[in-house]
Amino acid sequence: MAKAPVLTPRADDFPRWYQDLISKAELADNGPVRGTMVIRPYGYGLWERMQQELDGRIKAAGAQNAYFPLLIPQSYLTKEAEHVEGFAPELAVVTHGGGKELEEPAVVRPTSETVVNASFAKWVQSHRDLPLLINQWANVVRWELRPRLFLRTSEFLWQEGHTAHATYEDARDFAAHIHEHVYGEFMETVLAMDLVRGRKTPKERFAGAINTLTLEGMMGDGKALQMGTSHELGQNFAKAFGTRYLSKEGTQEYVWQTSWGSTTRMVGALVMMHGDDHGLRVPPRLAPVQAVVLAIKGDEAVLAKVREIGDRLTAAGVRVQVDDRTDTPFGRRAVDWELKGVPVRIEVGPRDLESGTAMLARRIPGGKEPVSMDALASLVPRVLEEDQDRLLEESRERRASRTSDVASIAEAAEVAAAGGWARIPWSELGPEGEARLAEQSVTVRCLVAEDGSVPQSDDAPGTVALVARSY
Amino acid sequence: MAKAPVLTPRADDFPRWYQDLISKAELADNGPVRGTMVIRPYGYGLWERMQQELDGRIKAAGAQNAYFPLLIPQSYLTKEAEHVEGFAPELAVVTHGGGKELEEPAVVRPTSETVVNASFAKWVQSHRDLPLLINQWANVVRWELRPRLFLRTSEFLWQEGHTAHATYEDARDFAAHIHEHVYGEFMETVLAMDLVRGRKTPKERFAGAINTLTLEGMMGDGKALQMGTSHELGQNFAKAFGTRYLSKEGTQEYVWQTSWGSTTRMVGALVMMHGDDHGLRVPPRLAPVQAVVLAIKGDEAVLAKVREIGDRLTAAGVRVQVDDRTDTPFGRRAVDWELKGVPVRIEVGPRDLESGTAMLARRIPGGKEPVSMDALASLVPRVLEEDQDRLLEESRERRASRTSDVASIAEAAEVAAAGGWARIPWSELGPEGEARLAEQSVTVRCLVAEDGSVPQSDDAPGTVALVARSY
Repeated sequence: MAKAPVLTPRADDFPRWYQDLISKAELADNGPVRGTMVIRPYGYGLWERMQQELDGRIKAAGAQNAYFPLLIPQSYLTKEAEHVEGFAPELAVVTHGGGKELEEPAVVRPTSETVVNASFAKWVQSHRDLPLLINQWANVVRWELRPRLFLRTSEFLWQEGHTAHATYEDARDFAAHIHEHVYGEFMETVLAMDLVRGRKTPKERFAGAINTLTLEGMMGDGKALQMGTSHELGQNFAKAFGTRYLSKEGTQEYVWQTSWGSTTRMVGALVMMHGDDHGLRVPPRLAPVQAVVLAIKGDEAVLAKVREIGDRLTAAGVRVQVDDRTDTPFGRRAVDWELKGVPVRIEVGPRDLESGTAMLARRIPGGKEPVSMDALASLVPRVLEEDQDRLLEESRERRASRTSDVASIAEAAEVAAAGGWARIPWSELGPEGEARLAEQSVTVRCLVAEDGSVPQSDDAPGTVALVARSY
Repeated sequence: MAKAPVLTPRADDFPRWYQDLISKAELADNGPVRGTMVIRPYGYGLWERMQQELDGRIKAAGAQNAYFPLLIPQSYLTKEAEHVEGFAPELAVVTHGGGKELEEPAVVRPTSETVVNASFAKWVQSHRDLPLLINQWANVVRWELRPRLFLRTSEFLWQEGHTAHATYEDARDFAAHIHEHVYGEFMETVLAMDLVRGRKTPKERFAGAINTLTLEGMMGDGKALQMGTSHELGQNFAKAFGTRYLSKEGTQEYVWQTSWGSTTRMVGALVMMHGDDHGLRVPPRLAPVQAVVLAIKGDEAVLAKVREIGDRLTAAGVRVQVDDRTDTPFGRRAVDWELKGVPVRIEVGPRDLESGTAMLARRIPGGKEPVSMDALASLVPRVLEEDQDRLLEESRERRASRTSDVASIAEAAEVAAAGGWARIPWSELGPEGEARLAEQSVTVRCLVAEDGSVPQSDDAPGTVALVARSY
């Protein structure tokens, strides 16, 4: 008799599989206020690794971390007309503080362009103060009517970058640098994700931006997920808040700005991009635990050996956890590590001590085989690199096999409905076609140039629209 | 003619000096909503270093990071009677979300015991799940009527630990471990602060705790500041939320809990503990920048040399910044680094190139002298260690010289009013004497045993009350 699967199979019900995995791998729970989320230690460990990797890249790009207040005067939001229109429906509003009704309600930040500009307007005086490159790690609240853990939650964690530049060109180039060299590079090399870089259509832009660059990933069911965005804000917020500088020529000029964000949604993407019917598969370069060394039974000799192997792998630069909880059945622990997607499991039992071998289970390609214990310290780092590449390659193949070039709106809708991505000339689709697709819950994920690069404008000749259903 | 001082001298007006320093060293600004704070990059850099050091120690103590929601149903707060009484006056309340009035208002977390217990009640089933050791890095909001940057702000950043244990003894020991081996050790060895460890009186305990352990520091003006607290929560929250476990004996038992926190207030303490009339003095082990290498002028040879020295010091394990902004006058930059309290400045001008020496300025003891450039890589790490010790020693001497043993309440009040700390037998003072002192804005900072250790109960024989004015 076959065992009941731990998770609902993806082919049966992808959303249910996702929910099962998030719960059984102990990534997150629902919080008590509708749409909020409790991030459990294993899920938070994934986020911490994302933070470490991104933070280093953000600092290398020249930005410094700072912190701006959670609560923003409601009137600030209204200073930039498109911005308030975009965010008003999602705001959480504090009306009482310290037992009294507030004179002016405060909104819980949905994003910080407004409150950041209130500071920038004070900090920026001269062209010598530019560029001003700031990043913040924070929580934000956007009221969510159809929440889904990590993907759409009323509160989420993110980093938001905010910069001010002397010229349009400098701001444009910086937004593009973050898009490609911070987000793109991190997501491809660490998250092992093949992503499309493009620009959003005017309809899909950030509220208040003049251009939004995006990275779009294809999930296991063929739907798209927006992974991170980098915005050119033009001078919209600078004019609303009076953020100006004295130029070399002695004139007062408004700054040019960017903002850019990536969020805990990336944890959800990790699940939907790399997960399989047995659970999560964590890319080795991201994994908080790259290898777990399991004692099958609690003999002293076995426990001593797993600790010894753990130490040797640690010395070889591997992030290791020793699992010596032998009062829990081995099978249950093995399934748990499989669910959590730890790339390598090394299993050691009493008989292995005699043979000098251990079972090496590889989560990403699957399968296990006995290997010499002495070879582990050189073998495991190699296996981890191989499996990192394998995940990226799988994500490349999925996108390539499920993307089609089409010539008509009807064909685009059909491809998207079948769980694929359609490429259609933007000159063919246009804002009207975009609106028609939206009626069928199909969106333009982004615009790309024929050669796969990011178009410099919406109407650059040869621009292609990438069309899909999305999360 | 003497130059006007950059800061109001401490002796003239300590609070004004503090405010001047926070502003001129670019640590923080006021936010637009009353009581909130913008933490500027240099101030945030200090906080990031504190986070790194504390996070490592918290993990070494066995706790894992997780994240709980910002918004808590209002009804949760009322489940523990003392807790709601303590926090109700400080709550910020969200009444509207997504454009609608909420059925139940949500409070912005002032602390997370309630929402954490809602999760713990689900996660803890068996004695095998204990101890459960969780930490969270987050922002909290407590409405503040008399805000002061870093010390009392309506929003602040902190870590809050929350743990559940099978027995009273295990919880008590863990709270004590955090108090001594995480907070005490970090603050003494990294922040260079001499602190008194003690227990709070019943009046000063955390709302909902059965015991609060504290670390109290003496600031430059002799007032006390609470630096971090570790609470034994008993079974108060466990009973309010039904957090129970199946014991080995097969009975259902309530868990015993702890919580413990340290906040951005530590940045304020750093200023008030170690600052002088020229600005901040950052303990070398904490300092994001331990040594700055300044080019006095913009000659190519000078710029090449400061970069070379920077590289050599980096290789020697020093956190270095090269200041080659020679379009800003040297004097202004030197004053700025002095304000920011960077422990070591190395100044290089054209004449130094010939002599092979550079000026080495030490911020902590003060003064500067020429040293051989070749000696810097071995000299600077030694100087940093010396100056770390020196700061701790200064803080020890201040406390020793300003603490007096007294026998009466009147004397205690007198000592406190003069900017000192008084030690008085708790049997002499008691809750009534504590109330009388409170009328003169003097508080019992903590109870200590005669030998300086932490008393196991409020009425242990020989317990001494430490009495002072405080921030």
